Amino acid sequence: MSNAKFVIPPFDQQAAEAARARQAQLTKPAGSLGRLEELAVQLAGITGKVTPEILHKSIIIMAADHGVTAEGVSAYPSEVTAQMVLNFLRGGAAISVLARFTGSRLTVVDVGVASDLPDANGLLKRKIAAGTRNMVQEPAMTREQAWQALEVGVEVVEEEVEQGLDILVLGEMGIGNTTAAAAVACALGGFRAEEIVGRGTGVDEAGWQRKVQAVKRALARANPDPEDPIGVLAEVGGFEIGGLAGAMLAAASHRVPVLVDGFIATSAAMLAAALAPEVRHYFIAAHRSEEQGHGQMLAFLGLRPLLDLGLRLGEGSGAALALPLVEAAAQLHAHMATFAEAGVAERED
Amino acid sequence: MSNAKFVIPPFDQQAAEAARARQAQLTKPAGSLGRLEELAVQLAGITGKVTPEILHKSIIIMAADHGVTAEGVSAYPSEVTAQMVLNFLRGGAAISVLARFTGSRLTVVDVGVASDLPDANGLLKRKIAAGTRNMVQEPAMTREQAWQALEVGVEVVEEEVEQGLDILVLGEMGIGNTTAAAAVACALGGFRAEEIVGRGTGVDEAGWQRKVQAVKRALARANPDPEDPIGVLAEVGGFEIGGLAGAMLAAASHRVPVLVDGFIATSAAMLAAALAPEVRHYFIAAHRSEEQGHGQMLAFLGLRPLLDLGLRLGEGSGAALALPLVEAAAQLHAHMATFAEAGVAERED
Repeated sequence: MSNAKFVIPPFDQQAAEAARARQAQLTKPAGSLGRLEELAVQLAGITGKVTPEILHKSIIIMAADHGVTAEGVSAYPSEVTAQMVLNFLRGGAAISVLARFTGSRLTVVDVGVASDLPDANGLLKRKIAAGTRNMVQEPAMTREQAWQALEVGVEVVEEEVEQGLDILVLGEMGIGNTTAAAAVACALGGFRAEEIVGRGTGVDEAGWQRKVQAVKRALARANPDPEDPIGVLAEVGGFEIGGLAGAMLAAASHRVPVLVDGFIATSAAMLAAALAPEVRHYFIAAHRSEEQGHGQMLAFLGLRPLLDLGLRLGEGSGAALALPLVEAAAQLHAHMATFAEAGVAERED
Repeated sequence: MSNAKFVIPPFDQQAAEAARARQAQLTKPAGSLGRLEELAVQLAGITGKVTPEILHKSIIIMAADHGVTAEGVSAYPSEVTAQMVLNFLRGGAAISVLARFTGSRLTVVDVGVASDLPDANGLLKRKIAAGTRNMVQEPAMTREQAWQALEVGVEVVEEEVEQGLDILVLGEMGIGNTTAAAAVACALGGFRAEEIVGRGTGVDEAGWQRKVQAVKRALARANPDPEDPIGVLAEVGGFEIGGLAGAMLAAASHRVPVLVDGFIATSAAMLAAALAPEVRHYFIAAHRSEEQGHGQMLAFLGLRPLLDLGLRLGEGSGAALALPLVEAAAQLHAHMATFAEAGVAERED
C-alpha cells in the first residue's frame, strides 16, 4: 500500500455550478438558506450529481487503546475503551441512540483495543495490536502498523460502499486519544502543545499539565516530519486515528461525503489531508468541539463547523447530530419548488 | 379575553433537577453533550416529566399582509404572501419539505392575507382583515383586532393539543413583516431602529433606509407604551405576529415547548413575554438569524440560539431545522444507558 492508492477524484465544479443555479430558482429569497445552500452545492460537487440523495447512512466507530495513558493523561482508566465498545454494541451509548435516531447503520471496529472483545453483531475485529506503545518513550507503532491502520479504514469503507453509502459519519473511542490527537495535530499543523491540548474527558489542571508534557516529550523524542504523515502517525498517533484517516480517503475516492466529528476525528482529517490534499473537498465539519484547539485545527483545514453546542464526547456524536442538517440541505435542494413551478413572483428589482 | 387568560404553569424545578441527576449517570463524561444536556433538563422542567418524549410535532405558519409595504420596504410584492401560502400547502416551500423531513404536521393559518385563498387541506381560514393598515400613517389594527389575533393563535394551538402535541414549531409568512417585527422589537425592547432593522428578503441600501424610516415614523406617530403590549401590537404589529404570540402563550399554558424561529417569531416571543413573562421558560431559540438585530432580541429574552447558519428565510424553517437537535436531546436523555446499567467504570477522581 502506498500513497498512490489514494486517488481522490476532483470536486465536480460542473455539478456544483448546476446546483448553485438550481438554488437561485427555488422559492426563497436568494441566499436565505445560508449554510444549507452551500452544503447542497458541496454535496453536488462531491457526488457529481446536481440533486444528490442521502439514503444510505453509515456510522463507523474506530476503537483503540493508547500506551500514553501510563502518563496519567486521562480521567478514565483504559478499561473504559472496551466497556464503551460493548455499550455501543448493546445500544446504550450516545452514538447508539443517535444511530437509531438518524436511521444510520452502526459499525464498531476494534483496530487496537487492549483487551479481547467478544464476538458481537456490528463489531469488526481488525485489531493491529493491543493498544499503542507509550509515545513518550518510543514510537506509538511501527510504520508498517501505521499503514495497516489506514488499510483497515479503507477496507471497512469499501465494505460499506458495497452496501450502498451516501454519507459517512466517523467517530472513535479510545481512552487517551485526545493526547495522541493533539500530538498529531501539533506535528502536522505546527501548533504548540499548549494551544491544542484540552481537558479531554475532563482532567483537572494537573492532568492537563501532564497531557501537555506528554505531547511535548513525545514530539521532542520523535521530532516527526510533517511531510511524512505516516511517520507522524507511527510516532505519536493511534490505531483509530489511522483507521479514520484511511476511511476518509476511501470515502472520498468513492465520492462519498464525510462528516468530520470533533477533536480526534479532525486530527485524522489532518492526516488524511496530508496524504492527499484533495480529500478536504469531501469533508463536512460537523461541529466545533469544546475541546481546546479544535477550532484551530478546523481552520488549518479550511473547514467551518455546522454546529457549536459545547460538545466534547467523541464517538462520532457531533457528526451524527449534524447529519439531519446535511440531509435537510439535500432534501430542500431536491424537493423545493422553483418560482416557475410554484407560480410565485420573483423579486421586483 | 384578558391577560388573566394567560396562566402559564411554573417551570417544574423538581423534574428539571431529576433530569440533571439522570444526565450525570449516563455513560458519557459529565457535561460532554453540552447544550443537549441543558435542553434535556429544560424539556423536563417544561413538561414536568423526567424523560419527556417528543412524538407529536406540529408546525404552524401564521400568514398575513402588511399595509406598510406601501412604503417600499420589501423586495417582493405583497401578492407573494398568498402565492407562498399556496406553495406551503402544495408541498413546494422550504417549510413543506422540512415538515415532511421531520415528520411534523403542517398547518397554515390565514390570519390576515390580503387576497382570498381557496379552500385547501392544511389551511385554516381565520382572516381578521385583508392585511394591516400602513403603520406609518395610522394604527396597523384596532386593539380589538390585536386581541383577535392572539385569540386565533390560542385557538389553533388548542386544536393541536387535542390531537397530541409535544413540541410546537412556529413560523410566519407575510411580505413586509420584518418591518413590523422590527417596530414591535423596538417598541418593546427599547432598541433603536438602526440596530434592529435588517435587509429582510434582501432589500438594497435604499430599501433598508426606507425600512428604517418607516419604523421610525411609525414609532414616532404611535409612541407605543412598552407596558401595553396589546397597544404595541395594534399600533405597529401584524396579524401573524399576534397569532404567533397567542400560540406561544397557549403552548406554554399546556406545558408544550415552543421552538422560536427567527426575526419575526422572536418579535412575537417578545410580545408574548411582555404579556406573561413566565412564557420564556417554554422557549427554545432555534437559531440566530442573519437578519440584523435578531441577536439582540434573543439576548433581550435571555435566549441562546442552537444554530447559527446564516438563515433568513422565515416560514419556521430555522425552527424546523433545529427540531432534530431537540428530539436528539430528548432521545439521548431517555435512552442512553447509565454507568451502572452498562457496567462502565466511572472517572477515577
